[in-house]
Amino acid sequence: MNYPQSFQDLVDCFKRLPGIGGKSAERLAYYILSMDKSYVEEFSDSIKNIQESIHYCVKCGHICEDEFCDICKDKNRDQDTICVVEDSKDVFAMEKVKEYNGLYHVLHGTMSILDGKTIEDLNVNSLFERLDDSIKEVIIATNPTREGETTALYLAKLLAKRNINTTRIANGLPIGSNIDYADELTLLKSLEGRKKI
Amino acid sequence: MNYPQSFQDLVDCFKRLPGIGGKSAERLAYYILSMDKSYVEEFSDSIKNIQESIHYCVKCGHICEDEFCDICKDKNRDQDTICVVEDSKDVFAMEKVKEYNGLYHVLHGTMSILDGKTIEDLNVNSLFERLDDSIKEVIIATNPTREGETTALYLAKLLAKRNINTTRIANGLPIGSNIDYADELTLLKSLEGRKKI
Repeated sequence: MNYPQSFQDLVDCFKRLPGIGGKSAERLAYYILSMDKSYVEEFSDSIKNIQESIHYCVKCGHICEDEFCDICKDKNRDQDTICVVEDSKDVFAMEKVKEYNGLYHVLHGTMSILDGKTIEDLNVNSLFERLDDSIKEVIIATNPTREGETTALYLAKLLAKRNINTTRIANGLPIGSNIDYADELTLLKSLEGRKKI
Repeated sequence: MNYPQSFQDLVDCFKRLPGIGGKSAERLAYYILSMDKSYVEEFSDSIKNIQESIHYCVKCGHICEDEFCDICKDKNRDQDTICVVEDSKDVFAMEKVKEYNGLYHVLHGTMSILDGKTIEDLNVNSLFERLDDSIKEVIIATNPTREGETTALYLAKLLAKRNINTTRIANGLPIGSNIDYADELTLLKSLEGRKKI
């Protein structure tokens, strides 16, 4: 027995979202069915709106509703440091720390052999356009994954040619973790990066 | 630092869905942002459509796109047996078994003291309207939870007054499970319901 067509359509839409399997998609569709009409309309509209209202900052590639993002517009931030991240969500994660006060540059992904993504597919050209004498440091904060590391190394090589002071965020044991649960590579990185106390 | 408003709106909408927390809602909103425009429109429309196209069958309460559902319309099904379930999704689950060929009745919930839901809040009146001399058996297939059992017992009492042959689906160990992992209540029900082999 099949679901009614319009129900199946919504289940199929939910199923295409990351981390949502068949069973969850059905549960969500049932939930939408039982919701207030006003909320359903709000949900439908906000999905349609997001692609119309949200743009990428012309300068750094971070999501924003105007031409430039709030960080690029803020003249109180250190204009001489750029932190390079994979995605906009990494900018929000870094901002939560309240330690870094420089600028960002969002790559929108990483180099990936499997997905056939090269450095040309990333938001890199606009990064090099930003690099003038005023920039004192570029912090590469891509994820410590295979793709993130590859991108970081490649970027570092390109930046070295331009004589830019480039740094990479540290790897090691996360705070609150247990050494006996850590994977070998993390422990190795943690040893390599040891500091005098 | 806050998300742009239209982004935050979508995150809030996703967060109201069951089983989706703050982090997942953000991830889904990012995903929607990166999707093809055509898919985003399809998703938005299917959410809006579902409440307009999907109705509840006038006879049994199951979801359908017409006045009556496919099961109620099918004259080849046994017209003398009604299986009472909590939700439409239980109908689809039962249909997958391909063993039952009778009719259904969907209650749209259970009695629940915590949520202040009584028998009056369920789709029960239309069930009693369906009970004439042609009905030989009513199978109560509410979930084996506290609320489901309460509803089953209450319904059974009401049906007894009408001299209807009422049955309840069996409890016991699920196939493929281990006795030493079973909870005590399930094991007790499994013992109580033992059969001669």
